[in-house]
Amino acid sequence: MTIGLDRLSLNQATVRQLGLADAVALCVRHDIPAIGLWREPVAETGLAAAASAVRAAGLHVSSLCRGGFFTQASADGRRAALADNRAAIAEAAEFGADALVLVCGGLVPGRGDLGLARRMIADAIGDLVPDAQRLGVRLGIEALHPMFCADRSVICSLGEAVDLALTFPPDAVGVVVDTYHVWWDARLSDEIARAGGRIVSYQVSDWLVPLPQDTLLGRGHLGDGVIDFAPISAAVTAAGYYGYVEVEIFNAAVWAAPADQTAALLRERWPQATHGPSWVQDRPGYRARQPERA
Amino acid sequence: MTIGLDRLSLNQATVRQLGLADAVALCVRHDIPAIGLWREPVAETGLAAAASAVRAAGLHVSSLCRGGFFTQASADGRRAALADNRAAIAEAAEFGADALVLVCGGLVPGRGDLGLARRMIADAIGDLVPDAQRLGVRLGIEALHPMFCADRSVICSLGEAVDLALTFPPDAVGVVVDTYHVWWDARLSDEIARAGGRIVSYQVSDWLVPLPQDTLLGRGHLGDGVIDFAPISAAVTAAGYYGYVEVEIFNAAVWAAPADQTAALLRERWPQATHGPSWVQDRPGYRARQPERA
Repeated sequence: MTIGLDRLSLNQATVRQLGLADAVALCVRHDIPAIGLWREPVAETGLAAAASAVRAAGLHVSSLCRGGFFTQASADGRRAALADNRAAIAEAAEFGADALVLVCGGLVPGRGDLGLARRMIADAIGDLVPDAQRLGVRLGIEALHPMFCADRSVICSLGEAVDLALTFPPDAVGVVVDTYHVWWDARLSDEIARAGGRIVSYQVSDWLVPLPQDTLLGRGHLGDGVIDFAPISAAVTAAGYYGYVEVEIFNAAVWAAPADQTAALLRERWPQATHGPSWVQDRPGYRARQPERA
Repeated sequence: MTIGLDRLSLNQATVRQLGLADAVALCVRHDIPAIGLWREPVAETGLAAAASAVRAAGLHVSSLCRGGFFTQASADGRRAALADNRAAIAEAAEFGADALVLVCGGLVPGRGDLGLARRMIADAIGDLVPDAQRLGVRLGIEALHPMFCADRSVICSLGEAVDLALTFPPDAVGVVVDTYHVWWDARLSDEIARAGGRIVSYQVSDWLVPLPQDTLLGRGHLGDGVIDFAPISAAVTAAGYYGYVEVEIFNAAVWAAPADQTAALLRERWPQATHGPSWVQDRPGYRARQPERA
């Protein structure tokens, strides 16, 4: 199983130092056919100008990041979150993005009740489904790493994201598989299979060891960390996902590097996405018990 | 449901600044009936002297920390790990400890293959079962937080720990439930129930927000973080665990505090272990949808 470079997408966060126009030009220069956009740089450019720049460059928009943060303590806060998410849905529609990525929100401030946060998220997504359907946008529930459970997303395993997505219509709600967040999960391949046609975005970056002090920035280029991408990519493909594969790297050193070097490295490391180290080198290594009993 | 102070145990790591004799004296002074020991301070005191000191003080040993680290790249390394774990089993037997806690090991150095690491762990535990049975020691597979998957334990959800434990005889292998590592899991109560009589240790500490730079030290006294202990304690009890509850806090500020203050705080915060913030204050708060539709 291989995934061609025609499915490579640059998530804009990987070159956060660039404005939207420069990120678009970078994709064109490096023959990267798609881009994952972030709302803040889009807003800086202006929505209409951003959409026409992306369109003029012939780029596909694989995702818009991001909506979510539904777990607000006050009714006003929750109303504001819904309004902001409706705006995000409209923006995703303007770009024809494959998904609006949702980072659903951590614990409700001042409250330790995980169930409360989870119910708020389910309610909010339910409120957004009609808007998503009307505009033809799919909401992607992203399972974040459990270390972000308290403050970013109580949805912190793929299984939980799938459980939640399955309670909504498939044309409106799916899940985002991000290797950095889910690679550790012993049940990952089962959960990916269970996601079936619900995968709306597949994002890749590597898990660095040791983890840096700011755990949000512990991502690396494919091959710089420990993730074995091949089986994950195979499972995502087997589950029926044939969309773009976004490389999304939050890393201060990557942001300090020249963007052209980063883009070149994306293409160079791309085979890692389908041929990880373990499948190439490690399979024949260990035989149970024999060394101890020799 | 309440858990009495007669089930409180001080994990020695909480007062890491003390030697074994001082930690034992602290328990006696603060009427703490049990202690969770670590092998390093035990070795400093000497095994026989440590065992007689604990016995003379009338303390129960709720756990010995720790065995594991089975995922070694070389056959020699794996042999050494097994020998070290056999020594740990003998030490646990000497103390009559309720469990030998296993931190099973991260990825095999230089290899990204999670399955390889998991097979090594299963093989090693299988090799240790006869020793554990002969000496009447129960091995406790501890599910660590997924942020430690790469370098400390690829067993990083309670479900995975239970799956593994269930492949071995119940008199030899169980699981350790540690709130810091598993609190985020949407399936936690299911997995605790499935663990049934296999829970051999229950450890508590709180999850601080924000997480400090060294993620190993992000633990706090009960009530200083966001964990809702009451439902976890209720599930552990319902699953048939009636043993000691160890407070195990890795935290530089706690280690810098006077040990008597720490011990007093353990008793003061103890009700948190069964009555967390959400059950007391939060249940009546949020009503789905009404605020948005008012």
